[in-house]
Amino acid sequence: MRKPRRDRYHHGDLKRALTAAARALLERDGPEAISFRAIAREIGVSQTAPYNHFQSKEDLMATLAAVGFCELEASQLAAAAAARPGRERLAALGADYVGFALKHPQLYRLMFGVGISDWSAHPHARDAKRASCRPIRDTLAEHLGDDGNARTDAIDTAAVAAWCLVHGLSALLIDKSLDIAKRGGQRALTDRVVSLFVAGLDLR
Amino acid sequence: MRKPRRDRYHHGDLKRALTAAARALLERDGPEAISFRAIAREIGVSQTAPYNHFQSKEDLMATLAAVGFCELEASQLAAAAAARPGRERLAALGADYVGFALKHPQLYRLMFGVGISDWSAHPHARDAKRASCRPIRDTLAEHLGDDGNARTDAIDTAAVAAWCLVHGLSALLIDKSLDIAKRGGQRALTDRVVSLFVAGLDLR
Repeated sequence: MRKPRRDRYHHGDLKRALTAAARALLERDGPEAISFRAIAREIGVSQTAPYNHFQSKEDLMATLAAVGFCELEASQLAAAAAARPGRERLAALGADYVGFALKHPQLYRLMFGVGISDWSAHPHARDAKRASCRPIRDTLAEHLGDDGNARTDAIDTAAVAAWCLVHGLSALLIDKSLDIAKRGGQRALTDRVVSLFVAGLDLR
Repeated sequence: MRKPRRDRYHHGDLKRALTAAARALLERDGPEAISFRAIAREIGVSQTAPYNHFQSKEDLMATLAAVGFCELEASQLAAAAAARPGRERLAALGADYVGFALKHPQLYRLMFGVGISDWSAHPHARDAKRASCRPIRDTLAEHLGDDGNARTDAIDTAAVAAWCLVHGLSALLIDKSLDIAKRGGQRALTDRVVSLFVAGLDLR
């Protein structure tokens, strides 16, 4: 009797190999291309092997998204640490956020709605998503001054608005809704859009 | 010989019926649920009938998206007409934009990237997308004052930023990334986010 091909892997190794194959496939062909069949084929194991490690395709997608959010948060924290406080740090966070999205466009599409229908079923991914926008919030709180309830509401609104701005810009750039060529490239446009927003804030 | 069932439809009527069925299916179950098979089943015609009217599923999706953008533009124009010029009109456009997206979340997801891989293959949809953000741009131009090249660049940046803001907010609300309950509901949050942005603009 022919041995199942997945015997070549230890249990943990196979899960890692499946996740790595899924990530590579995602970055190359997008969330629409992900299937257990395609991932198993990539690493030469049986089509049923993924079922031993992931409850469902969406469970695997949520894992990839959670990793993406952690990478985004790490990138944001590094960008914040490298910039001087105030407007400069906010601008650096904005540029870093959009830069991350454009470096990983298919991962970013997965992180925001393509391929996952119900985030509430994936609390680890949802929590990682919320954590990923915390560096922007913390930087705003530091510089708008968090010294009372009214101020807390203002900071919350500014943090939501900042996230909407960089997410919207990332999404519109990824789906090519914006004519970049006539606007001096995506980095120049990002800098102008982020600067306009930061300039409008009531920074002390 | 049994007549093909689609003989019940005149040519134009069948295309309309297919499009209407696709729109209903889209609004109910999302872009992921759209297939020629599912649409044909909805109106009781043969599975091959859609191929007589649409080159591909993506061609049908692009048609639905184009219709969506025209509806969004109509909604924006009506909102602009109903509001007084200046900040009030900008705020009304922001609220109307997000309101449209949340009234048609699955259509909006299709309009922005879920189910259409290459917009350049669908120039009518791409043009309709660009036209849909024109009411915001025109209102900004009217009130920031379009009286020179430098000013034109500033208006372009503000228009891009405004679109990013309302698109980002719509997308984050649709995929439930924002905790609405603790923020007084989506309309209240939208009003605060849009107000913060409008207040930061250099309006005359």
